[in-house]
Amino acid sequence: MVSYALGLDYGSDSVRALLVNTATGEEVASSVVNYPRWAKGLYCEPAADQFRQHPLDYLESLEQALASLWQEAPEGAAQSVVGISFDTTGSTPVAVDSDGVALALKPEFAENPNAMFVLWKDHTAVKEAAEFTAAANRSEPNYLKYEGGIYSSEWYWSKALHVMRADSAVKEAVHMWVEHCDWMTAVLTGTTHPDAFRMSRCAAGHKVMWHESWGGFPANEFFAGVDPILDGLVECLPTETFTADQKVGELTDEWAQKLGLPAGIPVGFSAFDCHMGAVAANVQPGVLTKVMGTSTCDITIASADAIGDTCVRGICGQVDGSVIPGMIGLEAGQSAFGDLYAWFKKLINGPAVAIIEQSDVLDDASKQKLLAELDDKALIELSAAAQAIPAGKSGVTALDWVNGRRTPDADQTVAGAISGLKMGSGAAEVFRALVEATAFGARAIIERFREEGVAVESVVAIGGISKKSDFVMQTCADVWNCPIDVLDSDQSCALGAAIFAATVGGAHTDVASAQKAMGSQVCKTYQPNSDAALVYDKLYRQYETLGQFAEGDKS
Amino acid sequence: MVSYALGLDYGSDSVRALLVNTATGEEVASSVVNYPRWAKGLYCEPAADQFRQHPLDYLESLEQALASLWQEAPEGAAQSVVGISFDTTGSTPVAVDSDGVALALKPEFAENPNAMFVLWKDHTAVKEAAEFTAAANRSEPNYLKYEGGIYSSEWYWSKALHVMRADSAVKEAVHMWVEHCDWMTAVLTGTTHPDAFRMSRCAAGHKVMWHESWGGFPANEFFAGVDPILDGLVECLPTETFTADQKVGELTDEWAQKLGLPAGIPVGFSAFDCHMGAVAANVQPGVLTKVMGTSTCDITIASADAIGDTCVRGICGQVDGSVIPGMIGLEAGQSAFGDLYAWFKKLINGPAVAIIEQSDVLDDASKQKLLAELDDKALIELSAAAQAIPAGKSGVTALDWVNGRRTPDADQTVAGAISGLKMGSGAAEVFRALVEATAFGARAIIERFREEGVAVESVVAIGGISKKSDFVMQTCADVWNCPIDVLDSDQSCALGAAIFAATVGGAHTDVASAQKAMGSQVCKTYQPNSDAALVYDKLYRQYETLGQFAEGDKS
Repeated sequence: MVSYALGLDYGSDSVRALLVNTATGEEVASSVVNYPRWAKGLYCEPAADQFRQHPLDYLESLEQALASLWQEAPEGAAQSVVGISFDTTGSTPVAVDSDGVALALKPEFAENPNAMFVLWKDHTAVKEAAEFTAAANRSEPNYLKYEGGIYSSEWYWSKALHVMRADSAVKEAVHMWVEHCDWMTAVLTGTTHPDAFRMSRCAAGHKVMWHESWGGFPANEFFAGVDPILDGLVECLPTETFTADQKVGELTDEWAQKLGLPAGIPVGFSAFDCHMGAVAANVQPGVLTKVMGTSTCDITIASADAIGDTCVRGICGQVDGSVIPGMIGLEAGQSAFGDLYAWFKKLINGPAVAIIEQSDVLDDASKQKLLAELDDKALIELSAAAQAIPAGKSGVTALDWVNGRRTPDADQTVAGAISGLKMGSGAAEVFRALVEATAFGARAIIERFREEGVAVESVVAIGGISKKSDFVMQTCADVWNCPIDVLDSDQSCALGAAIFAATVGGAHTDVASAQKAMGSQVCKTYQPNSDAALVYDKLYRQYETLGQFAEGDKS
Repeated sequence: MVSYALGLDYGSDSVRALLVNTATGEEVASSVVNYPRWAKGLYCEPAADQFRQHPLDYLESLEQALASLWQEAPEGAAQSVVGISFDTTGSTPVAVDSDGVALALKPEFAENPNAMFVLWKDHTAVKEAAEFTAAANRSEPNYLKYEGGIYSSEWYWSKALHVMRADSAVKEAVHMWVEHCDWMTAVLTGTTHPDAFRMSRCAAGHKVMWHESWGGFPANEFFAGVDPILDGLVECLPTETFTADQKVGELTDEWAQKLGLPAGIPVGFSAFDCHMGAVAANVQPGVLTKVMGTSTCDITIASADAIGDTCVRGICGQVDGSVIPGMIGLEAGQSAFGDLYAWFKKLINGPAVAIIEQSDVLDDASKQKLLAELDDKALIELSAAAQAIPAGKSGVTALDWVNGRRTPDADQTVAGAISGLKMGSGAAEVFRALVEATAFGARAIIERFREEGVAVESVVAIGGISKKSDFVMQTCADVWNCPIDVLDSDQSCALGAAIFAATVGGAHTDVASAQKAMGSQVCKTYQPNSDAALVYDKLYRQYETLGQFAEGDKS
């Protein structure tokens, strides 16, 4: 009898539902629904780096996604779903009250951004992050030793502290903070109440300072020492955490009805999106899985024996079981990848757009068409022209830190730069340097892993850019001097969730066999060009030099 | 009786003839003619920095310019011309044979770029310049002590050596090298033959290592030591040089006929364009005259007593009488000013131009119109947007060295850079940083003069940009923290030549009285904003830091 696994993938803008045959890995149906309030720009202040999402955005779009899914799925498929798993962005926490209700779901907080989920890319808590890093450096044990040594403004405690300082109503009402990924599973299994609430290993380990060696979370004194406002907060969290092959509970009657599914289906513990994407990509020791989009998330795994006592400096954490149960999951990432190309496109198109909009030469319909062409073709034009320039020929070097730097060594205050500009350096030369900069930024992560004894021999790429640009991918292969396998699935994160759902639902005995049956295939491999790789060894030193300058120059 | 002075100004692209009333300074007629071969791009290889001009371009366009001038001039004006003076670009030397004939005027060299004038911006001789600098540093006296200590690839001896090494036919045929400005006066007075040939102080002092203290030019051994190919060359040059208030000779019958003038009119010694422009701008001690175009030429003067033994480091020379007879003329300049804005315009317009050219949305005529709008309006759009950003707000810093650096401390190998780039840094922010960079580059020159004891209390601006952009000029006033007077005349260099022509022709007893009667008026003054000046004091340190990085990073 055919059985299906349901993977639910919450990205930055939309939720994706994916129904997968547990035996063959066939993706039989999928649907995507954008968050309605988020799409309107509600509750956000981009200029202040404030990005909030309303819990109803998540719940309403989930119902819609499932309704669409059943339209497309084989008849009766809902009855054959054996398990449900989630992945979400993170760290994306929300304040909940003593009943476990997300504050924005209460009438008095319904329109208060501080009562909503604080999206991963919200950087309002830069100051608070620095306070946690400083406090951890003073404490014994150093609670950041397994999170790269630097706490980020993107993470749970920074955000909790920032919001509680900024909003006394939230401060009074909050009982604990809950990650988006844990909130989804709690809602669907009816375990939102603090007495029943349980947490996933991935979120807790990478973002919330959980580690087995100090018995769970840091002591209350640590948090109260940063700010008395935090006193008692950590004591509301459960001490134990669970890997994604474990079951949170069963789908409640209420949610079964809303989603068109039978009640009682097992719901697995969740994880962050790229972690599950790495599972779909058959992540293994020595292979770095890279989710390449506007930013990147880089995942690899290593056995506890291989890692030993090493605490890898400057990455986003090493957590036992955060990716594959029984293995140490290591996370890193780049703050800007496709975002850097988008930045340049906006920079060069901006004046032309303004001039075309004001021009008398075209009617309005033609203007719209021409503006659409400009938007669609600018990067294609630039890529074609940039690809024709031999590596190392232009003399232009760029730094990819326009969004700050996530890893190695998180620092939101550093900025991008471009050097070596001559009269002959045109848009193509600069764009090539920017593409190289994103590849160099990735290389810095690979080199850090290697310096710390974590092997990286090849890369598996997933995400938009990996299938969109031969130029970018070949440049990466040359800069990294290692082969890159590109995955076929366009929805690797949801597929990874489905693999866990199949495991939790008993269709497979463990993650490894689920991966074997359901994991994505390689559709293309990029081999490094050894001549270009030699050139890039030199150019990478220039990138490092420019980086050292920017470090010293930061605001 | 009304008398007129004729100023002839040879720019990079065209010759301008200006007829001025010697008593009132009224500019009664002017004409401009582009060099015909140059306009077609003949004899140049921009990718290799090779820029050559054919002597016939200069002669033919001069005849045409005068023919046009008489169309416009008051009837009979030609009969009332009392003197003729030239200014030209420089260092722009040509090889002449033992009869004083420019080689390209001989049939066997007519199409040979190495037999033509090597235009100031030709940078084929970078290697040779370094050899002269090294040799001067080893010699006693250091023959570069009055030329800033660094010999440039733009200058006479670098170019002579480079061409003679590259072209054995030229090497065999050459008797001596002659600057464009000296060649024009020699041609018109019939003194091209080496026995009769005489040199202007300005070109010889600033570019050819002439100085009274070592008896004229450096010893033959110095040149032969750089390369035996130069042996004897310097001995063909006259030892004496002359300031521009002196007469070279009289207009020959042949050229009188060609130019529609009476024979016998006095022709004065010439100078470089910005030097004569500074005279029209009433240059005086403490005032820096800045010719602001694609690049800048900066001129000031000081009395010999005020300068004393000081050899100003890293400028383009200090020469007794190169600007005003009896005063030390000091020259500096920026390799890119308007060129930096043009570079950015090309960078951002490039992809849009390509997309519009390929688009089906417009017919060809509309495309041409829209492309013209893009070309005309890009910098206007950018200026308006950039002007709205408060000083110091964007965090973006740029370096103006896309053409290398002329002064302080000439170095063609350094390059431009941009730092502090964030996702919010758009074209306006970058353009503002580029405008600030050109102002900072100018400030570096002002600070160098001051460090060396040469006063700079205010600036007089001439040239295209000074009357075109309020935004650029106000930024300069704020960055320099000093007032800027903008000159009214659009043809200051030609006006300066006319002032010397009037002096040589006896309409005035000396340059000072000619200046008083004929010099240009101030049409606008920019006062520094003291708040902005404080901000720029800080930003200038960032510019210097970026410059130190680029110095270390150069190729």
